[in-house]
Amino acid sequence: MNHAAPRTPLAPARSGVPEHGRVPKYYLVKAELEELIGELGPGGRLPTEAGLAERYGVARATVRQALRDLLIEGRLRRQGRGTVVAGAKIEQPLSLASYTEGVTRQGLRPGRTLIALDRLPADPVAAERLAVPAGEPLWHLERVLRADEERVGLESTYLPVARVPDLAAEFDPAGSLYEHLRERGVRLARAEERIETVLATPREALLIGTPPALPMLLLHRRSRDADGHPLELVRTLYRGDRFSFTLDLTAPTTD
Amino acid sequence: MNHAAPRTPLAPARSGVPEHGRVPKYYLVKAELEELIGELGPGGRLPTEAGLAERYGVARATVRQALRDLLIEGRLRRQGRGTVVAGAKIEQPLSLASYTEGVTRQGLRPGRTLIALDRLPADPVAAERLAVPAGEPLWHLERVLRADEERVGLESTYLPVARVPDLAAEFDPAGSLYEHLRERGVRLARAEERIETVLATPREALLIGTPPALPMLLLHRRSRDADGHPLELVRTLYRGDRFSFTLDLTAPTTD
Repeated sequence: MNHAAPRTPLAPARSGVPEHGRVPKYYLVKAELEELIGELGPGGRLPTEAGLAERYGVARATVRQALRDLLIEGRLRRQGRGTVVAGAKIEQPLSLASYTEGVTRQGLRPGRTLIALDRLPADPVAAERLAVPAGEPLWHLERVLRADEERVGLESTYLPVARVPDLAAEFDPAGSLYEHLRERGVRLARAEERIETVLATPREALLIGTPPALPMLLLHRRSRDADGHPLELVRTLYRGDRFSFTLDLTAPTTD
Repeated sequence: MNHAAPRTPLAPARSGVPEHGRVPKYYLVKAELEELIGELGPGGRLPTEAGLAERYGVARATVRQALRDLLIEGRLRRQGRGTVVAGAKIEQPLSLASYTEGVTRQGLRPGRTLIALDRLPADPVAAERLAVPAGEPLWHLERVLRADEERVGLESTYLPVARVPDLAAEFDPAGSLYEHLRERGVRLARAEERIETVLATPREALLIGTPPALPMLLLHRRSRDADGHPLELVRTLYRGDRFSFTLDLTAPTTD
């Protein structure tokens, strides 16, 4: 199945051109650059900012604004001191087996870098969502997600210490937490997820290596075990310029 | 089931504070404003920009940048000439019965405004995805999505004219397309979806009434009928400051 929807036929016919109101000049430059991106193909190197300003007869600030939009959208990426055409976004299937599978399916090598593994007392909200008493010790595991060597996301997991007392001693933070849990007889059976778009905070941008205020995809998850008992709360931030989520729906229509 | 994850316990412990590197001044103001937002609650009115600049001892430009982030994230919204605390985002379940159900569940009245209903010949990419010959006539239906009277999204649908020849004559564009199809014996059985974050184009921003370059959630869908035959291609843009998507996962873990 091919989820990679083409841009052309799905974009509105008059995309970018308001029926009334003015089209900003940077947007016209952006449209020209989109054509150029199509011609160059992934990995193709763009002319310099000054060269583009001359080619389109606009100020460098106008070119810069168009480039920034295309960088934010993941159509372009910085390489050394230049700008090249980006490849397709990583398609992350929305499933219980999330990160490893999605990245591996695209021929990339998943990796994780430990930022923090702390014990914290559950505050009232986390306690309620995990169905444990307030103050109950929780693990807080925070890791940067990598695809090949590129940093692409940041994941925070909260789970009761009582579920996996040995986590700090025995868990390899570069590995899969779900595999670690499975080896100890804890199986994820269900999860509720919520997806939104947010801006990276300065700390997140620093950890992931993006400009601050880059739009990110934020996935909140609460997982449950086979008995329906809450197991973990997860907050995963994915670079909006590098990821899309995919899913298959089969429910009956009731619209 | 409550998808509304709390912000506090899921946010990283040192959110916004890099271990090394400087925290931009606007971000400190943003953190102060987030506290104020919590105190005021939904609908609460913020002091003026000048008042906030004085309160926090910073330049008005710094306050403006912090306010812009919070507006983009949907924590604040403009009301007349002032700024008020926004309510929770609309939670849109990812299901075949999408827009109407999600909005109605939140106690809002769904609405749609027709922008365009055209006949177009299928270009090669759309033809391949819809499994029809290139050049086959397609309906292109474009509508603004409303929740109560607020414009919250923009939807473009492409489907073969042969499936619903009477669409232009008999379909009420304020109503549900899926209901119209169902009444004619066409049932959606499955869909493949892809979600990403993109910036609104000037045309989209104008139609939806947002600032250009606001991060949006973009949902691509290909629906299939009970025989597995592709039925429609849909591109729906949801305001990133007003929507989140929710889903329940039950697949077995294979991470």
